[in-house]
Amino acid sequence: MKVIRYKHDLDFTYALGATLVFELLKTRPNSIRRIFIKPTLNKETPEIQKLLGLAKDCKIDIYESEKPFNVLSPKDNCFVIAEFTKTTSALEKDKSNIVLVNPSDAGNIGTIVRTAVGLGYQNIAVIGPAVDVYDPKSIRATMGAIFHANVQYFANIEEFLMLFPNHNRYSFMLKGAHDFDKTGVKAPFSLIFGNEASGLPDNYAKLATSVKIPQTSESDSFSLPIAASIAMYECKDIK
Amino acid sequence: MKVIRYKHDLDFTYALGATLVFELLKTRPNSIRRIFIKPTLNKETPEIQKLLGLAKDCKIDIYESEKPFNVLSPKDNCFVIAEFTKTTSALEKDKSNIVLVNPSDAGNIGTIVRTAVGLGYQNIAVIGPAVDVYDPKSIRATMGAIFHANVQYFANIEEFLMLFPNHNRYSFMLKGAHDFDKTGVKAPFSLIFGNEASGLPDNYAKLATSVKIPQTSESDSFSLPIAASIAMYECKDIK
Repeated sequence: MKVIRYKHDLDFTYALGATLVFELLKTRPNSIRRIFIKPTLNKETPEIQKLLGLAKDCKIDIYESEKPFNVLSPKDNCFVIAEFTKTTSALEKDKSNIVLVNPSDAGNIGTIVRTAVGLGYQNIAVIGPAVDVYDPKSIRATMGAIFHANVQYFANIEEFLMLFPNHNRYSFMLKGAHDFDKTGVKAPFSLIFGNEASGLPDNYAKLATSVKIPQTSESDSFSLPIAASIAMYECKDIK
Repeated sequence: MKVIRYKHDLDFTYALGATLVFELLKTRPNSIRRIFIKPTLNKETPEIQKLLGLAKDCKIDIYESEKPFNVLSPKDNCFVIAEFTKTTSALEKDKSNIVLVNPSDAGNIGTIVRTAVGLGYQNIAVIGPAVDVYDPKSIRATMGAIFHANVQYFANIEEFLMLFPNHNRYSFMLKGAHDFDKTGVKAPFSLIFGNEASGLPDNYAKLATSVKIPQTSESDSFSLPIAASIAMYECKDIK
């Protein structure tokens, strides 16, 4: 049985852990290629019984072996892994969306997807170069929310703008011209956030209405997941 | 020169990195016991010149040695460390505050302090057992905001309640009885959050108004720093 460590250019990836695999079985069963279970897994718990039952119903092959865990999750306390095909889903045309420009941290993009879906945002654009949301580490940080989201990658912002020329755009910048909480945001909108360390390039002040989240001078700027979460929350009822 | 790795029961701790040390010099210079600099530090940059000048003005001893860095920050790209006395500052009586019950992650408590200070909350209660906010890892995650905050530890919630019997209290729970964004929060208030994995114990629904942040069923609950940030943001103008 051949198991390959995840790489960006593979067309499949892995969901690590029973919770994620269960979520995947419920939402995208047809994408699953096979499931690995650790020989030491306790198969008698109700959750695992249910998981294995669902997998059987979907006619998914289950392999009991230590090896995939050594390759894919050597340090983790993980007993179930699903290998599944990446399904790229395009952003919905008429819905408000979140735009992440050059995000670089797997945990951060995962947290943002998790929060976005929790607040009812299902459409997330990622402008490259950027971290891979299908990295098993990112998938894990989404806590399964990725299976309910449309995440679309774009080589540059122009590609994105061609598809969404009429969305109201807001660029989050430390020197944003407007306080975001006093900006009359109108749907459909795009909320645009920059890289963790460098933020958005200056030209984004021209591509969109530049805004900032008001804050005291006594703290460093909000981290990317915090800024994105606050902004998504602020607009949740008008999206 | 003796340098001790940080432990919870020491009455001093460490600020790792020039940015933090600079913030400490500006806000709490008297707490600094000594400063270490790495022999490979470039002392000619304007930032470092300013930092060393400030330290000299405050008559703080500066030691140039590799050793403290090996002990305190072996993997880090860190060139300046300040050893400083922990100053415990009591919560302000009449101000709204944030209450963290049994937080367990150094990065999370740091992020929450950073966001709190950014949103104008300076008073943070921590109910033990809990992670140590003076762990250099937590301090670093605050990005210096800790030097502008009053963080007070309590052995249990009763101790806290004795000091703040009349604050309006809101417990954030997945099964909270009220949607937080429709709750008429009144100042001064206490926003209460539970542990990352287990949340608040059931009895907190009786100790306070139990609330939840509305979310879709398609995502796991918000992470602790995200939930706390959203709640603090929601109430920033009424605190």
